[in-house]
Amino acid sequence: MNIHDKRIAKPSHVTTGPIGKSRKLYSSPLAYPDIRVPYREISLEAEAGEPPLRIYDQSGPYSCAAFEPNLEAGLPSARPWLAKRVGLETYQGRAVKPEDNGFVEGEKLVQPCPAQRALYCAAGSAPVTQLEFARAGIITEEMVFVAHRENLCREHAVEQAQERIADGESFGADIPDFVTPEFVRNEIAIGRAIIPANINHPELEPVIIGRNFLVKVNANIGNSAVTSSVAEEVEKMVWSARWGADTVMDLSTGRNIHNIRDWIIRNASVPIGTVPIYQALEKVGGDALKLDWEVFKDTLIEQAEQGVDYFTIHAGVRLAYVPLTANRVTGIVSRGGSIMARWCLSKHKESFLYERFDEICDIMRRYDVSFSLGDGLRPGSNADANDAAQFAELETLGELTKIAWNKGCQVMIEGPGHVPMHKIKANMDKQLKVCGEAPFYTLGPLVTDIAPGYDHITSGIGAAMIGWFGTAMLCYVTPKEHLGLPDRDDVKTGVITYRIAAHAADLAKGHPGARERDDAMSRARFDFRWNDQFDIGLDPDTARQYHDETMPKEAHKVAHFCSMCGPKFCSMQITRDLRVEAAQLAERDKGMADKSKEFIAKGADIYIRETTN
Amino acid sequence: MNIHDKRIAKPSHVTTGPIGKSRKLYSSPLAYPDIRVPYREISLEAEAGEPPLRIYDQSGPYSCAAFEPNLEAGLPSARPWLAKRVGLETYQGRAVKPEDNGFVEGEKLVQPCPAQRALYCAAGSAPVTQLEFARAGIITEEMVFVAHRENLCREHAVEQAQERIADGESFGADIPDFVTPEFVRNEIAIGRAIIPANINHPELEPVIIGRNFLVKVNANIGNSAVTSSVAEEVEKMVWSARWGADTVMDLSTGRNIHNIRDWIIRNASVPIGTVPIYQALEKVGGDALKLDWEVFKDTLIEQAEQGVDYFTIHAGVRLAYVPLTANRVTGIVSRGGSIMARWCLSKHKESFLYERFDEICDIMRRYDVSFSLGDGLRPGSNADANDAAQFAELETLGELTKIAWNKGCQVMIEGPGHVPMHKIKANMDKQLKVCGEAPFYTLGPLVTDIAPGYDHITSGIGAAMIGWFGTAMLCYVTPKEHLGLPDRDDVKTGVITYRIAAHAADLAKGHPGARERDDAMSRARFDFRWNDQFDIGLDPDTARQYHDETMPKEAHKVAHFCSMCGPKFCSMQITRDLRVEAAQLAERDKGMADKSKEFIAKGADIYIRETTN
Repeated sequence: MNIHDKRIAKPSHVTTGPIGKSRKLYSSPLAYPDIRVPYREISLEAEAGEPPLRIYDQSGPYSCAAFEPNLEAGLPSARPWLAKRVGLETYQGRAVKPEDNGFVEGEKLVQPCPAQRALYCAAGSAPVTQLEFARAGIITEEMVFVAHRENLCREHAVEQAQERIADGESFGADIPDFVTPEFVRNEIAIGRAIIPANINHPELEPVIIGRNFLVKVNANIGNSAVTSSVAEEVEKMVWSARWGADTVMDLSTGRNIHNIRDWIIRNASVPIGTVPIYQALEKVGGDALKLDWEVFKDTLIEQAEQGVDYFTIHAGVRLAYVPLTANRVTGIVSRGGSIMARWCLSKHKESFLYERFDEICDIMRRYDVSFSLGDGLRPGSNADANDAAQFAELETLGELTKIAWNKGCQVMIEGPGHVPMHKIKANMDKQLKVCGEAPFYTLGPLVTDIAPGYDHITSGIGAAMIGWFGTAMLCYVTPKEHLGLPDRDDVKTGVITYRIAAHAADLAKGHPGARERDDAMSRARFDFRWNDQFDIGLDPDTARQYHDETMPKEAHKVAHFCSMCGPKFCSMQITRDLRVEAAQLAERDKGMADKSKEFIAKGADIYIRETTN
Repeated sequence: MNIHDKRIAKPSHVTTGPIGKSRKLYSSPLAYPDIRVPYREISLEAEAGEPPLRIYDQSGPYSCAAFEPNLEAGLPSARPWLAKRVGLETYQGRAVKPEDNGFVEGEKLVQPCPAQRALYCAAGSAPVTQLEFARAGIITEEMVFVAHRENLCREHAVEQAQERIADGESFGADIPDFVTPEFVRNEIAIGRAIIPANINHPELEPVIIGRNFLVKVNANIGNSAVTSSVAEEVEKMVWSARWGADTVMDLSTGRNIHNIRDWIIRNASVPIGTVPIYQALEKVGGDALKLDWEVFKDTLIEQAEQGVDYFTIHAGVRLAYVPLTANRVTGIVSRGGSIMARWCLSKHKESFLYERFDEICDIMRRYDVSFSLGDGLRPGSNADANDAAQFAELETLGELTKIAWNKGCQVMIEGPGHVPMHKIKANMDKQLKVCGEAPFYTLGPLVTDIAPGYDHITSGIGAAMIGWFGTAMLCYVTPKEHLGLPDRDDVKTGVITYRIAAHAADLAKGHPGARERDDAMSRARFDFRWNDQFDIGLDPDTARQYHDETMPKEAHKVAHFCSMCGPKFCSMQITRDLRVEAAQLAERDKGMADKSKEFIAKGADIYIRETTN
């Protein structure tokens, strides 16, 4: 793919094939043959004497060995039950308008994706959103799907699950040893988790986002007025899911965004989020003062019909909060937040997003588009963290959460941003309190401002911590943050960094299955199974490449040492030898371990000379 | 430099010249013209209307615009006072023996560095170590040096110092608003800080390591039996200091290590640490069972005479603790730890390092080589974190600390390793308690084991956290950890990642000057001063390169937008406009800010419509 070819009429290439030495599999929960839940199995060297390692898989059909993508047809349906769901009706959708693609014409117009889908909306007041079903006591196929997925398709709890939970520190989360569909239903019913799953996104493999489930990762893609290419954006979506993004936000601005979004959604097995105000602003020629409810409403319907799974809505940026940002070091840094602040202040009127919030809910409910209530006043620097503007908005997001819940809508809450380490927990605690435990979805936070070029790391530190404290989904940051648009490599680095943060959080919370992969890696290290080490890791390709730079030969893959220490200094090898010697000595001494215990019990001088101190 | 040229007789090239748009300067504290303390100044664009930003500088003379390195002569003395110091005497040192360089001969022998230095040792019982001076109430030039250095060469506290300290969370640290030489002396006297500064390392610019000072970073370099080049190692030392390593450990194994070390020390302005057992093992042909006190003692003297500033000594690996590792997932992973464990277990004898600890102290005191008490039983996997073996050794390190202190030696304590987030703080708390607040020096810790190729990140997360909790120095990890030897790029990535972690810790602890750089960056962002953003950052070259990939023109360096959002969506620009509008509206409405306050005070409905909920 030539990334310099700015305008390609349709995507030509996406990455396919197995990831490392893993195999993509699907599993159906008992009694649900329609539900095919994906996971991956990493097969280990025979000498390991271990079954293949199961891992959660976000990569969609693209990682199946046999899968041949047809981007024009889109992905096959992963939710066949939607066609049979009571309470939905098909209808004739809104016609595409010239402004949807920025009035672009001729050669410069990206062709629409030819894939056709039946268009659904709620037929009336019968349950349509996952929240409505959950409250009605109904377990949907999506709930069964995510329960099976969180369990890595096992029908029973992992070994030592209770022990692992007890060994963790979850700060009041309620992590189950085994995820049942009923547990999922209850978490959704009380608003503590969401399944962003537009009824017009049948290609979706459902994902659950909530504090009592595995921590999720979002990747942002999107063209901008400065650089864009449809091929690049579809590939970035596939590519970011391949490396572990659970959801993808399309933050495109500029032209062709309707048609590019269509290509993305029709080929996306992950939930897609957007910020509708960006497109609304394009429709009014970029002048924030021309924004109004009508153009925004039209955009919501347009995108909901396309199948967007969640919308960022900056309805918490209220007129009265704008002056609170006046003395900030970096003012307002959210694009959506600054657009709305400008609108409110210039017109001296309350935000139409806030005033029309009920109507927004009604539209989003019709398609089960989840809310991602935007933090338009998030801090853009450590200096501005946890200030009055930020927390005033957060309280409003709490009010809006309750309104949306009453309307039957699923809700998550966006969080900062730039926050030094010692101020991170206050964000989580306040969010839990004022937003009724609705899932938190944070950008980083970046724990220092001084490292442009490395903000995946400055933010990965904050992300791991806030994930541990209770954030349900972490929005990635790439090395290009603050500097430019991420390319394919940046997207991968961002996703892997955030998978590290999310997994570190799962481990610390005591998620019962999280440590399995770490332990498999550690055993592979101890056994010098180099190929297994590469394949168990988050990025087999990079690990293998780094290893081979100093030890390229195939024979080195079974070498009982590595280039760091060389054969003489290999501590792992020494420990292995030690075990053999210890076994022999144990025989002689009736057990070294007993000796050690004996010393500990009696405090006697068996092996330990008293210090001369 | 050709890194494939494995055996170059002498170094041919090191990196020199200013870092970004910064200027290297030296400052002498009042009444100490002999003391020249380095710092850097980053000059900002004229429109900033700000004085140059001062930053701490580790890079040595190499970053001076005018400096011409002469590696054969070594660096000029940075401690001219040593020649006049009472209590030192010169003597004829130990002759270099063939085994010091692994019996290598002819072409394969790296030539010794021709730089000649007077050789000093303690003349008797008069104070020679920084600890002895401190206890005697004597403020040394090194103490004055580090005090001035920590203050960034200011003669007064920074603005808002008390406020910043109060705003932080230091977990019981006692961070001063201004560092006086007397404060330094007292911290050293009570063992809470060290200045690793061998009296035979006059090229050294002293550095203080302790919980109440800026968090420091160590970089490891070193060849191994598998790959090595003297040119590469000297350059890696200069290169890692350039990017912010406060100390460098030479972990070389294999041949030529005496001569390579000589080149490194004679050209090092940063403290150099080593692990003498590695060279001792080389001298006995790699057979741990042939190790004894005589060869170890000889190696200590050899390296102390060369000017090594601190030694890792694994004296806490005791015979009785070895069985405690038998059921670990990854056994013993420290090279030094596994060598000593093998020695103890095979001979069924207590460690000679433990038994001869008094004598080790006597040697190290003579040259003021600081102890870095090694954690030979640190966990090599999350599964083994905080186990009985690790904590038994830590308690022994506490005992040894007190012995070393009684002998007049400076001490820091090494820590893990691989630890999940929720078990990190227990390490810090236990270390503070059992080691009498001696500085903690940790490797990471890595918060998950599943990301080979990204272990700078898995460990950077843990490093930031443990630095916040009180660790005084963070030992870096590079992307090649567990896979291969780091090259120059890996060293830089490791150092920058750890500078991020250390700085994030300083910010969270409330170090009074830490936020200045973040705030300068944030102001530059808000003002669209692109060049300033690059130069204020930790890595100006990478930031500039990333920016220029999408916006290469010089005109873009003053553009009031960037490639991420484009001109229409630029939130920073919108906020700037907002400020202008707000000022106009304020005039009209007698102040928006007053309005907001009025609302907050009265709770009245001025701008905020009641929710319809």
